[in-house]
Amino acid sequence: SRSINLAVIPGDGIGQEVVTEGLKVLSAVLPQDVKLETEEYDFGARRYHATGETLTDADLDALKRHDAILLGAIGDPGVPSGVLERGFLLKLRFAFDHHVNLRPSKLLPGVATPLAGQPEIDFVVVREGTEGPYTGNGGTIRKGTPHEVATEVSVNTAFGVERVVRDAFARAQARPRKKLTLVHKNNVLTFAGHLWTNVFTKVAAEYPDVTTDYIHVDAATIYLVTDPGRFDVIVTDNLFGDIITDLAAAVSGGIGVAASGNINPSREYPSMFEPVHGSAPDIAGQGKADPTATVLSVALLLRHLGHDAEAARIEDAVSADLAERGALPARSTSQIGDALAARVAG
Amino acid sequence: SRSINLAVIPGDGIGQEVVTEGLKVLSAVLPQDVKLETEEYDFGARRYHATGETLTDADLDALKRHDAILLGAIGDPGVPSGVLERGFLLKLRFAFDHHVNLRPSKLLPGVATPLAGQPEIDFVVVREGTEGPYTGNGGTIRKGTPHEVATEVSVNTAFGVERVVRDAFARAQARPRKKLTLVHKNNVLTFAGHLWTNVFTKVAAEYPDVTTDYIHVDAATIYLVTDPGRFDVIVTDNLFGDIITDLAAAVSGGIGVAASGNINPSREYPSMFEPVHGSAPDIAGQGKADPTATVLSVALLLRHLGHDAEAARIEDAVSADLAERGALPARSTSQIGDALAARVAG
Ligand SMILES: CC(C)[C@H](C(=O)O)[C@@H](O)C(=O)O
Ligand SMILES: CC(C)[C@H](C(=O)O)[C@@H](O)C(=O)O
Repeated sequence: SRSINLAVIPGDGIGQEVVTEGLKVLSAVLPQDVKLETEEYDFGARRYHATGETLTDADLDALKRHDAILLGAIGDPGVPSGVLERGFLLKLRFAFDHHVNLRPSKLLPGVATPLAGQPEIDFVVVREGTEGPYTGNGGTIRKGTPHEVATEVSVNTAFGVERVVRDAFARAQARPRKKLTLVHKNNVLTFAGHLWTNVFTKVAAEYPDVTTDYIHVDAATIYLVTDPGRFDVIVTDNLFGDIITDLAAAVSGGIGVAASGNINPSREYPSMFEPVHGSAPDIAGQGKADPTATVLSVALLLRHLGHDAEAARIEDAVSADLAERGALPARSTSQIGDALAARVAG
Repeated sequence: SRSINLAVIPGDGIGQEVVTEGLKVLSAVLPQDVKLETEEYDFGARRYHATGETLTDADLDALKRHDAILLGAIGDPGVPSGVLERGFLLKLRFAFDHHVNLRPSKLLPGVATPLAGQPEIDFVVVREGTEGPYTGNGGTIRKGTPHEVATEVSVNTAFGVERVVRDAFARAQARPRKKLTLVHKNNVLTFAGHLWTNVFTKVAAEYPDVTTDYIHVDAATIYLVTDPGRFDVIVTDNLFGDIITDLAAAVSGGIGVAASGNINPSREYPSMFEPVHGSAPDIAGQGKADPTATVLSVALLLRHLGHDAEAARIEDAVSADLAERGALPARSTSQIGDALAARVAG
């Protein structure tokens, strides 16, 4: 489409800083005839401290009218653990049915990795985003007593598993290696595990050109550090995806460059794009944050909206910038943003 | 005690090979006046194929009479996923209340790691072994239909969490650095997370000399590859412990050297010691398996039974052997066992 109506949620800590650079690069890459409208929303810790609100129905109605959402980071040590996560981030993922949580991992030339021997890493994790242990099902009895029992219920449906598995097969088929790995723990979590495994096997029959395999989540963490090149596309449940994508980010350049999309492929609701990193209050306001993860999230956003050429221009600019970084003196958040904006415009 | 009555479960695949070496080293290290009695049990895939049985009440009664159990590995690709895991391994952990699942990670000199720069790694994970998502709670409705729903219930009790947290604090206090890290996901799994966090905070007050911190499980995987030296003792739930100990093993020398103990500290039931690795059917019967993880599990077993000096002798022998390995031609399973037995006897 020739216009983009974007909701922008800078959030807390370094969120504002990195989002500013993301928007800078977005403006620079878009052709003249694509009209970019942005509306900023002041969600996060500041608002919670001021009003006690995290995300109201009116907020959701407002966000719903946008084509997509760009999020910086949400969170503040002054807010009790879980309040903003469950009350904002997860509430939004669930309300807008962001069932495809897309997290690419690519170790770009010149980028440092904690792994010896600079292995080739280029895979994408399709993490289910609306089920599993993230539903908030469960509860507590006898809280605070020696007899407290707390439960967490992982909820998995054929509907929910099948749609994300299909999405992952389609993505695998579109990549050169055409390989899809299911990651679960089906030898212990046998109820959910059998559902995932059966759906995966059923859908695989429709994609004879996609090579498939299965790995337990514990073994997957071993492969991610000993042989990350074995992965092309991974599909996995919400919690396993949370865990392995942080590890994947760590081995492929760190969370400074890890992008993610919370995608509703039906486009019934706007999808949301955000760096994997958090609000990093310790370095906030100092111009030290790396905006690269946000800029790469903007590329995912553009691809989701059909602007593939512009997405590729951003990714190329990031590759070129990262390749030269080692030779440059340290730059500030906005200097990196300027450099990337110049590259995509050039 | 001056006698050890050991149940030996070689199991499947490489299990028999590594257990043979573990027993060889055990016999070599024990002083003359400690009587070692062993009884072998033929559990695992072979028995399951022959009889359909995994672990009967009579089996449990028999095992119960021993001082400890040494397990090789259980599992065979011919057995459906979950049958031996739930029907044998987990059944035994639950029946004998093995609530402390102890998994040390130490990168020994000369041992290869996938991490660049050979970092210092020396920590121990205390994984809860009888609760969390491992209880088998949950179920499936409308199985095999498009409306299937499968649940997994993580069950966490104050009783279960407190005893393992106390065990971890005691272990941290006994180590030079005296540091304990709680790993959970309390910002999303808020019911279980609050229970773990509250119990941890409460017990911490009794251990003012132990430094504590908290890390989300996803971030913990990042630290395990970027800064593993930050960890001393980790306490965590059953599933998170499963995942991070495989990663911990990978970065600290691989599962060829990763030992574990399934411990019932009350000694009401025998504890079980086993290598973290599986039955590795692809290399079974070829003398290729590394028995080191089993030998180190024997050291954990000895320490549990109060034979600290012998445990230390085994650990020293393993360190010395590993330090020389790079310079030696490849050795078979039994050659490594012979070398270790010679060292501990010498
Ligand atoms: C902040 C938290 C709710 C979130 C998650 O667990 O999904 C984060 O870790 C992520 O991966 O986006
Ligand atoms: C085989 C399986 C049941 C087991 C577990 O998940 O605990 C294994 O992965 C382990 O870590 O001992």
